Amino acid sequence: MAIELKELTASEENYSQWYNDLVVKADLAENSAVRGCMVIKPYGYAIWEKMQAQLDKMFKDTGHVNAYFPLFIPKSYLSREADHVEGFAKECAVVTHYRLKNSPDGKGVVVDPAAKLEEELIVRPTSETIIWSTYKNWIQSYRDLPILVNQWANVVRWEMRTRLFLRTAEFLWQEGHTAHATQEEAMEEAVRMLNVYSDFAEDYMAVPVVKGIKSANERFAGALETFCIEAMMQDGKALQAGTSHFLGQNFAKAFDVQFVNKENKLEYVWATSWGVSTRLMGALIMAHSDNNGLVLPPKLAPIQVVIIPIYKGEEQLVSISEKVHQLVEKLKAMNISVKFDDSDNKKPGWKFAEYELKGVPVRLAMGGRDLENGTVEIFRRDKLEKQTIAFDGVENHIVNLLDEIQANIYQKAFDFRASVTRNVDSYDEFKQEIEKGGFLSAHWDGTPETEERIKAETKATIRCIPLDRKEEPGKCMVTGKPSAGRVLFAKSY
Amino acid sequence: MAIELKELTASEENYSQWYNDLVVKADLAENSAVRGCMVIKPYGYAIWEKMQAQLDKMFKDTGHVNAYFPLFIPKSYLSREADHVEGFAKECAVVTHYRLKNSPDGKGVVVDPAAKLEEELIVRPTSETIIWSTYKNWIQSYRDLPILVNQWANVVRWEMRTRLFLRTAEFLWQEGHTAHATQEEAMEEAVRMLNVYSDFAEDYMAVPVVKGIKSANERFAGALETFCIEAMMQDGKALQAGTSHFLGQNFAKAFDVQFVNKENKLEYVWATSWGVSTRLMGALIMAHSDNNGLVLPPKLAPIQVVIIPIYKGEEQLVSISEKVHQLVEKLKAMNISVKFDDSDNKKPGWKFAEYELKGVPVRLAMGGRDLENGTVEIFRRDKLEKQTIAFDGVENHIVNLLDEIQANIYQKAFDFRASVTRNVDSYDEFKQEIEKGGFLSAHWDGTPETEERIKAETKATIRCIPLDRKEEPGKCMVTGKPSAGRVLFAKSY
Repeated sequence: MAIELKELTASEENYSQWYNDLVVKADLAENSAVRGCMVIKPYGYAIWEKMQAQLDKMFKDTGHVNAYFPLFIPKSYLSREADHVEGFAKECAVVTHYRLKNSPDGKGVVVDPAAKLEEELIVRPTSETIIWSTYKNWIQSYRDLPILVNQWANVVRWEMRTRLFLRTAEFLWQEGHTAHATQEEAMEEAVRMLNVYSDFAEDYMAVPVVKGIKSANERFAGALETFCIEAMMQDGKALQAGTSHFLGQNFAKAFDVQFVNKENKLEYVWATSWGVSTRLMGALIMAHSDNNGLVLPPKLAPIQVVIIPIYKGEEQLVSISEKVHQLVEKLKAMNISVKFDDSDNKKPGWKFAEYELKGVPVRLAMGGRDLENGTVEIFRRDKLEKQTIAFDGVENHIVNLLDEIQANIYQKAFDFRASVTRNVDSYDEFKQEIEKGGFLSAHWDGTPETEERIKAETKATIRCIPLDRKEEPGKCMVTGKPSAGRVLFAKSY
Repeated sequence: MAIELKELTASEENYSQWYNDLVVKADLAENSAVRGCMVIKPYGYAIWEKMQAQLDKMFKDTGHVNAYFPLFIPKSYLSREADHVEGFAKECAVVTHYRLKNSPDGKGVVVDPAAKLEEELIVRPTSETIIWSTYKNWIQSYRDLPILVNQWANVVRWEMRTRLFLRTAEFLWQEGHTAHATQEEAMEEAVRMLNVYSDFAEDYMAVPVVKGIKSANERFAGALETFCIEAMMQDGKALQAGTSHFLGQNFAKAFDVQFVNKENKLEYVWATSWGVSTRLMGALIMAHSDNNGLVLPPKLAPIQVVIIPIYKGEEQLVSISEKVHQLVEKLKAMNISVKFDDSDNKKPGWKFAEYELKGVPVRLAMGGRDLENGTVEIFRRDKLEKQTIAFDGVENHIVNLLDEIQANIYQKAFDFRASVTRNVDSYDEFKQEIEKGGFLSAHWDGTPETEERIKAETKATIRCIPLDRKEEPGKCMVTGKPSAGRVLFAKSY
């Protein structure tokens, strides 16, 4: 049985097809039989698990604990917060019945009309409402605050056009929901978690991000302020990679959550929520990968090192395996995940291509000549470069190389983003430049109307008002009205 | 504001109320606003996380990987396997619509009748059908086998009578779904995972279990054989703590999953599935706890050691804290989770009761006299015993004590089970004895009819045919027909 090399569409030919090919052929995910829902395959899930583990650690290091709230939300809860229902109640999965029965025609099962719910249940699109209805019972006094809870969960938003990882009806995420005694504390928390997300994106995913504030149009439904991290993909489109919301007292008021403060007065509780999802997988893929496949940062690679024997005859394989096993033990002791692929039904060339496709950061190949010479061939996925080095001490070389790769792919993404970020000062220039992709930094008069006009005419949106922007008075590129500083525009995922 | 001690109903007074009190007052879980769905609170979730981490490690050590499949199952999929649909399709949450709209009366939102799904979606009660419809695309040749996949997920089964952790509409679980080239391999896998569950229950939960096979009546819907572990609770009722199913080729046939075997012939794939759920939390609670609250095995306790200062004045607190902090560092370095509770708004007595309620295995208390004498008071939760020992070297004492507690609570549960397990040889004796609770080992003629009669007349079911039962020919206690050996009966959760 011939095993074919899996070829990707070239990204310059059709970026969207390249992305889809890559996700499917690298065994990350695939579409399921259920419209808009994906299957996350073991290799993709292994990357997600590494992300989860690191994020979970960072959440706990900042004082948070995990909990779990119901999948279902009573329909009426969504209407409690006016903006929230506008943003979330529309496209969602609605449970109306709780029983099936045998079909009268004897074929299969049908919904039992007698088992209709009195009030429909919504499959959570996000959990503010169910969680704040619970917090009402948890909070009486300032002594009960803060509540710093996170939940790892699945959520459902009925999307008409879906793309693996980037936009799916069901996705996996974490949602933090915190409750505080003061506005300042809640605001600090929202910013703290924004920083956790940005550190994670940059230090682990090797994806540089801009930290900023969303314009009112792009704000989370029910928030007073939405903070975000925005990343730049290799096709020049931006991707919102995480958000952290300062919710004010909106949900406390909607669910009547008050506490007795230190002055013995009743006050509404202050809230934040923050989340990242399996969408991060899309960002990871599109920020680094190439036409040979995935490029994974070593810190998130399920397999950091693969070793492939190139042998003639069983005897040579035994000799190679002996040396390799020693190395494998050393690497494992150094907490490096390593796979020795001595499967005999695939040729080395096929294996090389396969592990490149899967983004394994470092590949070692060892053949008969290496045995004689005490050498090994070492290949780095990010630069597609190989060299032959001494086998003795190769483990130290690998440790350094993994660090170097992590730093290099971050730098590459950073340089790319710098190369596609520029200031524009007129709307004509903007319209021309936005077609080339990238971030455009421009003055805006601060009104939703102007933002909507730009979006309608160019498909670009304000990705954020960068937290570190210079105070630089100017004139809106569209209306000429005054502006306090530049904001970041891009077309986006 | 007075902080009241949280009192439990005595278990001998009302076991069921004791259980519910304990779950709620120890902050493990509570009922939510959604019928039958629970909120798992941070302390309860922390125990579940420890269970998850250990089980996940054991799954990976036995060669499994994680993946994720859709929450929704097309209604028609459930009907593909005839037994399966009988067992699962009836009481389930049915999604019929994908959109809400503003209510015509301006109040809230209503289901949009225009957004009716062509085919209803079922919220997964278990995932065999959606997974085997996916495996069809993953499996062509024997080279693609085995597939050893596990999923951590939420599932929904519409239950009319729910109890926290034991029976809830939504619960968290893991479900392994494996695919094999031969019957032998699949059967080995089913038994392997049964052993993983039993090792986990005994070595980590400190709950002794009987490994066995379910009778046909109690078999998983769609399985050829269901293996189970059965635990004994302190009220004399049994609890099924985990199941592992040999599914034969049922699902492969239902979803047409065939592979080319080594002889180049098409053959249906062999399957297993296995799962444990948040129900284990119920088993953990009911196996060990007492009228003072939870008793947790040290290996699963989120806090293994709590240290409480008993002081007069700030100065004494400082001196105590200094000594305690050194100990805390030592314990952390030994991977022991420790909490120093120096909160000043609760009295030591309240704290003592609170940590007993929460099942913290070891409590240290340090006061002024201890400072003078170089001592510390150490209390073990399982035996409610305290002693005063030298502070120097207390960390080593703690390590040993934690091991001793783990062993002791297992032994206690083991002895209790032994004390309530007995042979009975006549149906009259059975009917008397079953009212006292415990496991009854009796001869049964192997027919569903007799089993159903016993259940109808006594509410007891066959918990399992123990794997290690003696071959002991006898006569069915009900019908007098021949029996090959005793089976285990009990009333159960």
